[in-house]
Amino acid sequence: MMGRQTTIKMNRERALSGSDIITAAVLVIGDEILSGRTKDQNIGTIAEHLTDIGIALREVRVVGDVEADIVAAVNALRARYTYLFTTGGIGPTHDDITADSIGAAFGVPVEVDDRAVALMKPAYEARGIALTPARLRMARVPAGAELIVNSVSAAPGFKIDNVMVLAGVPDIMKAMLFAATQQLRTGPRVNSVSIVVRSAEGEIADLFAAHQKRFPDVAMGSYPTFSEGNYRTELVLRCSDSERLEEARAGLSRLLAERELL
Amino acid sequence: MMGRQTTIKMNRERALSGSDIITAAVLVIGDEILSGRTKDQNIGTIAEHLTDIGIALREVRVVGDVEADIVAAVNALRARYTYLFTTGGIGPTHDDITADSIGAAFGVPVEVDDRAVALMKPAYEARGIALTPARLRMARVPAGAELIVNSVSAAPGFKIDNVMVLAGVPDIMKAMLFAATQQLRTGPRVNSVSIVVRSAEGEIADLFAAHQKRFPDVAMGSYPTFSEGNYRTELVLRCSDSERLEEARAGLSRLLAERELL
Repeated sequence: MMGRQTTIKMNRERALSGSDIITAAVLVIGDEILSGRTKDQNIGTIAEHLTDIGIALREVRVVGDVEADIVAAVNALRARYTYLFTTGGIGPTHDDITADSIGAAFGVPVEVDDRAVALMKPAYEARGIALTPARLRMARVPAGAELIVNSVSAAPGFKIDNVMVLAGVPDIMKAMLFAATQQLRTGPRVNSVSIVVRSAEGEIADLFAAHQKRFPDVAMGSYPTFSEGNYRTELVLRCSDSERLEEARAGLSRLLAERELL
Repeated sequence: MMGRQTTIKMNRERALSGSDIITAAVLVIGDEILSGRTKDQNIGTIAEHLTDIGIALREVRVVGDVEADIVAAVNALRARYTYLFTTGGIGPTHDDITADSIGAAFGVPVEVDDRAVALMKPAYEARGIALTPARLRMARVPAGAELIVNSVSAAPGFKIDNVMVLAGVPDIMKAMLFAATQQLRTGPRVNSVSIVVRSAEGEIADLFAAHQKRFPDVAMGSYPTFSEGNYRTELVLRCSDSERLEEARAGLSRLLAERELL
């Protein structure tokens, strides 16, 4: 017999991704995020892109530039989800320890990769920049990894097994993300619709909860804002089956209109 | 005998927080962050505030509105760090399951709290809003919790053991965060200084790595940007001992000047 929790979770899975769910996690690496010095912009970008292409982001973690912490997070997340995306720590300086940490997580050596050098050399020559030993650090990848092209500044990211290792600088991260996700398996797209009501959440909560019970296979969330003395609540419905989603939306609309909340 | 990894980690701890380290984690709760619909603003706010008051943020996680996932993350993080801050999921609607999940994590019942009702009643009356059963959901807290005052919209957060449960709406989160951290133990403040060079990271990487080796007790990071055809790298030095920090800064400045990089 399935417990209540399991049933709800299964209905939710069905609502959010159909039967063939592809899941992912993100691991943000960097002391500067944890100190508050840099505000992360990558989580939102990756979340939006994965939703667009039908991959369900399930978990995000942020850890500092500490090898043991990176290894532990990588090994926990790559085992649990279809894909893991990491950002940050692949530059040329001593605090860039992501490549070595990924090597340690997989138990493989990390060495300068000829294919990476071949990508970097012409780009650096064109810019009149010497390929110093420090810069060659950016060509080091774990054994067995494939490269992820960097159309912005040449030094590549890499993919090893189900782990995609991307840069932390937002523009470069974005270029690598789009390149990396071309090759990935994706699931059915999740469709969403929203209805905005000019009331506080508390006004619609009972009605909304009852509606959720009637449509357990449609994920429903409410997002309140309050500005200039006005309440506003956005009701978001999400489901991979677009007919079922429309049925839930129309029903909710009718209920709100009856209560004069629209 | 201590391994290399342990020594580096200990030096880093000393650099970042002195001997009496108070650590923290953040758990962001909400489907809307994982779908990319809402861009998180709270991680950066909390990170900055904790750094200001001498608490070292060590890890952040984001999970969806799934009780089992919240419980697992809460129990892992509250055991590992001095404090855990959660954001999100304490509103009045059915998708707000944080209070129940925290109750489940601690194995205690969650019930309407008279002190919370006493805080909410006058504020709601003043705004001419009825305290409906849905709104009373926001007065439910796990047994044994203390309330965290919400100066923005009355419905409180709560603290149970070392876990602070805060709202997700940024303005309310901020008010609760400042209220909650008044009572907490804090460590020595970490001081930081930075030097900006108009070069790419690759130019300074060797020099910077050698300097880090001379000052293992000062945490050093480099943060590159590239805009309008110009490279810019910010070198950040952090240490709780301000004399030692100044010594490292002056030394780095001298080295950069000698190489005509300043």
